[in-house]
Amino acid sequence: MFEKVLIANRGEIAVRVARACRELGVRTVAVYSTADSDSAVVRMADEAVRIGPPASRHSYLNAAAIVEAARQTGADAIHPGYGFLSEDADFAEVCADNGLVFIGPDPEVVRAFGDKARARTLMRQAGLPLNAGSAETLASAAAARTVAKEIGYPVIIKSVAGGGGRGMAVVWSPSELADAFARTQMAAQATFGDNRVYLEHYLVHARHVEVQVLCDAYGNGVHLGTRDCSAQRRHQKLVEEGPAPGLSPCTLDAIADAAVRGALAVGYRGAGTFEFLVDETEGFRFIEANCRIQVEHPVTEMITGLDLVHEQLHIAAGVRLRMRQDEVRLRGAAIECRVNAEDPDRGFAPAPGRLDRFRPPGGPFTRVDTHGYPGYLVGPYYDSLLAKVIVWAPDRDLALDRMERALAEFDIAGPGVRTTIPFLRRILDDAAFRKGRYSTGLVDRLVNPPAPRDSRLPHPTT
Amino acid sequence: MFEKVLIANRGEIAVRVARACRELGVRTVAVYSTADSDSAVVRMADEAVRIGPPASRHSYLNAAAIVEAARQTGADAIHPGYGFLSEDADFAEVCADNGLVFIGPDPEVVRAFGDKARARTLMRQAGLPLNAGSAETLASAAAARTVAKEIGYPVIIKSVAGGGGRGMAVVWSPSELADAFARTQMAAQATFGDNRVYLEHYLVHARHVEVQVLCDAYGNGVHLGTRDCSAQRRHQKLVEEGPAPGLSPCTLDAIADAAVRGALAVGYRGAGTFEFLVDETEGFRFIEANCRIQVEHPVTEMITGLDLVHEQLHIAAGVRLRMRQDEVRLRGAAIECRVNAEDPDRGFAPAPGRLDRFRPPGGPFTRVDTHGYPGYLVGPYYDSLLAKVIVWAPDRDLALDRMERALAEFDIAGPGVRTTIPFLRRILDDAAFRKGRYSTGLVDRLVNPPAPRDSRLPHPTT
Repeated sequence: MFEKVLIANRGEIAVRVARACRELGVRTVAVYSTADSDSAVVRMADEAVRIGPPASRHSYLNAAAIVEAARQTGADAIHPGYGFLSEDADFAEVCADNGLVFIGPDPEVVRAFGDKARARTLMRQAGLPLNAGSAETLASAAAARTVAKEIGYPVIIKSVAGGGGRGMAVVWSPSELADAFARTQMAAQATFGDNRVYLEHYLVHARHVEVQVLCDAYGNGVHLGTRDCSAQRRHQKLVEEGPAPGLSPCTLDAIADAAVRGALAVGYRGAGTFEFLVDETEGFRFIEANCRIQVEHPVTEMITGLDLVHEQLHIAAGVRLRMRQDEVRLRGAAIECRVNAEDPDRGFAPAPGRLDRFRPPGGPFTRVDTHGYPGYLVGPYYDSLLAKVIVWAPDRDLALDRMERALAEFDIAGPGVRTTIPFLRRILDDAAFRKGRYSTGLVDRLVNPPAPRDSRLPHPTT
Repeated sequence: MFEKVLIANRGEIAVRVARACRELGVRTVAVYSTADSDSAVVRMADEAVRIGPPASRHSYLNAAAIVEAARQTGADAIHPGYGFLSEDADFAEVCADNGLVFIGPDPEVVRAFGDKARARTLMRQAGLPLNAGSAETLASAAAARTVAKEIGYPVIIKSVAGGGGRGMAVVWSPSELADAFARTQMAAQATFGDNRVYLEHYLVHARHVEVQVLCDAYGNGVHLGTRDCSAQRRHQKLVEEGPAPGLSPCTLDAIADAAVRGALAVGYRGAGTFEFLVDETEGFRFIEANCRIQVEHPVTEMITGLDLVHEQLHIAAGVRLRMRQDEVRLRGAAIECRVNAEDPDRGFAPAPGRLDRFRPPGGPFTRVDTHGYPGYLVGPYYDSLLAKVIVWAPDRDLALDRMERALAEFDIAGPGVRTTIPFLRRILDDAAFRKGRYSTGLVDRLVNPPAPRDSRLPHPTT
């Protein structure tokens, strides 16, 4: 096992990683921007290094400063968390060049999955079902039109380098295509510095189902079951649960097996997530893979009893996978709600401020992962995720009741601070959600009456 | 299911019961003394009734005021928690007389187990192994001397009406017996209004192992495994864990089966705990039963996935037991640490005060049951239990590491406030404890060098 791990992240995931390290007897180095000097992980970690001003590109995206902090403190590995540098193949290479273990897959694998078109090709070769779409990147709007005509409308144009739900447009008819193509290209260039786009069939009533996999460096891989992440708003997940409800055990097994097949085909190493769209007939298609720990990983932890960050650390340290597939037991149901510092009544605008009161829920089978504490100043610089509430129960109905209880109990107040808790409670209260019969349209239906021909409708891929 | 439950308790267990009720859609009534008007359960419950001044006898032991509060609010059942009126057969009868369901066993069963000598007789009749001792209450020191000579020294003299570790004396030789007998009689009269005493063999290196049982009103009963509660200081448990470590599966099964046999023999109903002493050869003897939810019930919840307060409510509402023995799955290991507002450096004297900072630990498989919050005033009136930290892991070693992490993370501070956390960390750090090879002598060894012939040495029965 490592002696000292540098945590190249902030917020709740930095706290999460610090806890895992401490339990394994691994010392930790926190890095922080000047905006985060009061952050919880700075207090929890064994050492803390200030790496730059608030802007991410000067701090949490500043590979040179992070590697220098690792060198100064003698860290032997870097845990990138999620977001920031977690899926940056160049950063993974820089780590290796500096004798640091990057806790994640090989840089080539990270790079392959970062190119969404290439990922599709690799997964098709591995035998995974794909959503109908262009085989390659599209050279022009005319090329896009040809493919769209073949597979039928609606289609979605996506950035090859995309992620986080950015750089996409849904196209409902041929007349909208040229505009959408140009708009997506421009957005992709501006956001990712890469204007390549591709196109897929757009599934209107799809469910977003993902599979957690663990693979070691010796060609062994297991899945840890499914999560349903269909409750999204503008590609941002709000509520995640596992196992994905309302699907037959046969379908769940088939999706999970496909994910393991895909992971082993590319020599995946570590914890990863394979994302699928599932249609109303339980047909499923691979959309993308995430080469890192997910925000929603606690759902899987509650169901399997495993600590995924421990497993990441063991695998990165060269340990063989510690369980066979038939030793993975999935038990009960778990739900995660993301509590963001946003105002649901003002279009989910960030609502930062100081937390005068911050009393997370507790009690049976209720977990809160947060960096918040009473007096903490939620700043405007980073994402608005303030806490994750995760509950478990022997069955989904009780898990839902438990989550309602936990959210009702969560007491957060401060001048200007608003949270998504009232909106999360509306989701839990929705009849379709209660029944486990919902799709990616759920949240939009709760936010607005449906606008069926809006080309900016989100597509669930994050 | 009930419509409204009155919670006849305070502190963390009142919060615990309120959570369970809310998850089942049951409305709650909190009752509180004037010292507890700022307590967490008053805020959480649907209604709250002030029942009297701080002194317990005028508030939480005031049966008339509690029944009146139930009448006023239209509650249909009373959950007594632990302590206070939870094992008061008269109170259970008063509830029944007022048309209120007392959430616990029948009054006659509560009464039978409240008389420790009678409980021994009943359990001997049910075929449970008993510690050697007097068959009945002892009329005189001379009678005690006869029995003690028969079974051999050391012996322990106990109050028939005892509980909470009070009214006991260990006797190491015949010359000490008369004094100890008189002292115990007087203490029993003063504490319980009942001077009857009995006598048992005193096991020096015993382990305290208890079994959680659940029985319905239709003669069905299951056990939910064992807990080891040997880490006690002056009969007060500090650390509890399950399953009891270091015992053979055969012994654990035999103890658990004995508990179910004992419970079914007396028509037990609800959640109960059967306590045993286990000697170095894994011989076990019944000592007493507790007719209520235990402080340490979360250990069993973490291992079984069940919510014991839910089960109490279902059983009291007349529902049949919802699981057969072969459906109870025990998984992994759980540990509970009791965080008391006491100063370990000053003989564990109560150390109340205002909690300026109160940040309980979180993260994976870490549960905190507490009524504390930032700004809460820990008063001098009631017991000093401030929070319970419970962790789970697939194996005991990781559970211990997780608990160390959780305790290190717990941030409590305020003028005059001290907690048992530093002492709990010493227990976790102890080599014998780590190995799971400890007995009721563990804590005394950590507090003081051993004093082998001190007749006031505690005996583990609480």
